[in-house]
Amino acid sequence: MKLITNTAKAISSTLIETQGFAVHPHIQTVRSVLAIGNYEAPEASVNLPTDEGLLMAVDDVVKNTKTPTLKYIFLIGIGGSNLGTKAIYEAMFLARDVVGKTYPKIIFVDTNNSALLESYLTLLKSLEDPDEYLLISISKSGGTTETIANTEIFLAAVAQKWSSRPERLIVISGAGSPYLEVAQTIGAHCLTIPPQVGGRYSVFSAVGLVPLALAGLDIQELRRGAETMATTCSHPEVSQNPAATSALIQVQAYRAGKNIHDLFIFNSELESLGKWWRQLLGESVGKSVPNTSPVETVGITPTVSIGSTDLHSVGQLYLGGPNDKITTFLSVKSKAADIPIPFKRTFPKLLPMINNHITGTITDAILDGTKVAYNENNRLFMEIQLDEFSLYELGAFMQFKMIETMYTARILGVNPFDQPNVESYKVKTKQILENKNNSPT
Amino acid sequence: MKLITNTAKAISSTLIETQGFAVHPHIQTVRSVLAIGNYEAPEASVNLPTDEGLLMAVDDVVKNTKTPTLKYIFLIGIGGSNLGTKAIYEAMFLARDVVGKTYPKIIFVDTNNSALLESYLTLLKSLEDPDEYLLISISKSGGTTETIANTEIFLAAVAQKWSSRPERLIVISGAGSPYLEVAQTIGAHCLTIPPQVGGRYSVFSAVGLVPLALAGLDIQELRRGAETMATTCSHPEVSQNPAATSALIQVQAYRAGKNIHDLFIFNSELESLGKWWRQLLGESVGKSVPNTSPVETVGITPTVSIGSTDLHSVGQLYLGGPNDKITTFLSVKSKAADIPIPFKRTFPKLLPMINNHITGTITDAILDGTKVAYNENNRLFMEIQLDEFSLYELGAFMQFKMIETMYTARILGVNPFDQPNVESYKVKTKQILENKNNSPT
Repeated sequence: MKLITNTAKAISSTLIETQGFAVHPHIQTVRSVLAIGNYEAPEASVNLPTDEGLLMAVDDVVKNTKTPTLKYIFLIGIGGSNLGTKAIYEAMFLARDVVGKTYPKIIFVDTNNSALLESYLTLLKSLEDPDEYLLISISKSGGTTETIANTEIFLAAVAQKWSSRPERLIVISGAGSPYLEVAQTIGAHCLTIPPQVGGRYSVFSAVGLVPLALAGLDIQELRRGAETMATTCSHPEVSQNPAATSALIQVQAYRAGKNIHDLFIFNSELESLGKWWRQLLGESVGKSVPNTSPVETVGITPTVSIGSTDLHSVGQLYLGGPNDKITTFLSVKSKAADIPIPFKRTFPKLLPMINNHITGTITDAILDGTKVAYNENNRLFMEIQLDEFSLYELGAFMQFKMIETMYTARILGVNPFDQPNVESYKVKTKQILENKNNSPT
Repeated sequence: MKLITNTAKAISSTLIETQGFAVHPHIQTVRSVLAIGNYEAPEASVNLPTDEGLLMAVDDVVKNTKTPTLKYIFLIGIGGSNLGTKAIYEAMFLARDVVGKTYPKIIFVDTNNSALLESYLTLLKSLEDPDEYLLISISKSGGTTETIANTEIFLAAVAQKWSSRPERLIVISGAGSPYLEVAQTIGAHCLTIPPQVGGRYSVFSAVGLVPLALAGLDIQELRRGAETMATTCSHPEVSQNPAATSALIQVQAYRAGKNIHDLFIFNSELESLGKWWRQLLGESVGKSVPNTSPVETVGITPTVSIGSTDLHSVGQLYLGGPNDKITTFLSVKSKAADIPIPFKRTFPKLLPMINNHITGTITDAILDGTKVAYNENNRLFMEIQLDEFSLYELGAFMQFKMIETMYTARILGVNPFDQPNVESYKVKTKQILENKNNSPT
């Protein structure tokens, strides 16, 4: 993975000198958390990729549940309990899933949408062999309404078709959560999430590793990429530390009035990776600064665009509208599957400049053309290029973004690990459901 | 479809009185364009739903190409050439496509992504009967790089497997475009887009109607919904005109510093509808105001969130971050497919308040809880409720949004129909491709 900040150079070289002090103590924190290696500190998620006990626990569950006939893994979770897994799964398998005949597949049950739930249940009920499915139910607190409701619905469908089959249920939840306790009593496979690891930082815990390993992905490679990047992103010199550099650029842009950060992805398989990052940045930074009066709020709104598609959609706004965004272009170097423009064309007179090219070269030219246009319109951007489409690179990118986000929040004076305002709608929702239960119908 | 602006009431009642003058002339324009009924004016897309000649031309092509064995319609287009069609197709068929055994399906070839293209080609090459596929290639200008490149690639794959088969190619392009001319010479089915109808306003032209009719959807219902809404949204009284009312609220919020408009959709089948709207608002409003010095730029950044999923993702930012957004909650009333929480629960002690509920009630409670939380945190929102999941309601919603966007752009002093800055990256891209062709390799 390579972070390119050339275009923000005028900013970044000065920034590192003048603002480096703002990030130094936070780099030191991450360094010491990595050195200690346990789960005591809020930043503890950086230690997941080297946790050998975790890997053994994951391997154990996978060995005991991965049947040769496994077709569908129904992953029941929402938010941090599934966004990271979905990001990696789609990055590796999206193209395969269009053609549609390879298994096992992960079905992401992240919705209360009745029609989609019904279609997932139809899949489950269509199976003949009861070892063709697995349920994974993930909730850190154990009290997530959507997840518990969906788990009950799936367990009832299983019981109706076969019988209660706790050996096909994997529950992943916070250590000591009431969900884990009752799941253990019925004999489900249980795995814990360390208390300090919140949902949006949990992809390298059992939350991500169990389903990805079951889907046949090499989680060791993912961990290796993350581990290497944790070292790089805790380098004490800001100029050698991509997460510290980009955090400073991001904060500077935000303070200059750019309240939107657009991740402009030129490989559409990575759209879900963008959605994972959207939670990471949105939830980590968007809150009020403690002890400010009047209360000061900060928050960068993350948006995800897909190239070249969205150049034909929101490109006009981005190039010609208000200069209220910072952009990070994300692309992948590998060109293994490129397709040539046919030598004998049907419409040779249309766009002769595409002759003799391959699809990858066209995408590259579009990205290059876009960068020129962004520069000419004075739009601030950084670039991240993954060396190839691999679990190693995905692990590196996600670790980079998690540490960059920690630095960004800390520089802005907010806690990267809490989400104090999320509770408000959850409490109201539960009250509304209780009231409906108690009212005469 | 119902627009609810109660929560913006304090704003909206005063607004209509004090700011109504800003929208009145633009309502008059839409009224007169509807009365004239032709394609002369920039607003002419409002006349597509009542164009009987268009309907006959579409029916004709559908009749001549829809084979009984049709499995895959490869729709090659990008931006305005496919976003509206995809929005409607996924709204009606997303749940069906998970289960995966019903045909015909539309495959949206809107990418230069090599891996995805390769998987689409694999599908095409897997067909045994040459009448199982159809290619639709759509480009208003006829010069869209991605679309022409992909069309050539698909035509070459067809020719390699069978032979040149122009009778299975439908080309939809601007009247008089060079693409249409050469497509006619090889004997492809050709349909035109009226010159004044730009991509983001073209869903009720052949662009949307041909593929949707081929997929088996009742395009008459779609047209009927759009026609009725065009009448409603050209009502001279702002208080009786939902598009004028919401345009005024949107402009007021934008002028008060809310540079982001979030469409928060509580039916995940409508995510692509959100992406269609993203282009509509982004491209129509994001540009510079003519004759201002120094140049004044305007632009509202559209974002799409999915409930309840994104409450677990960006909910923290939305409720606790900077108050820099206006939100429109979009939901659908119909509850036909609701699923009950099982009477006999596996984990009865977890979340007892979900007992006796159905999934739809839970979603409703989450939306209601969210609205309470938005109010308590002083976040501005409107609501749109579709009466049911139907083509009529989708047509109404899309027509509403198109007219609302026209009014918004006009009030802000920009042209809703141009996209002057999009050309810049396109020109650069073509230059880069030409230079690569000419340089020695």
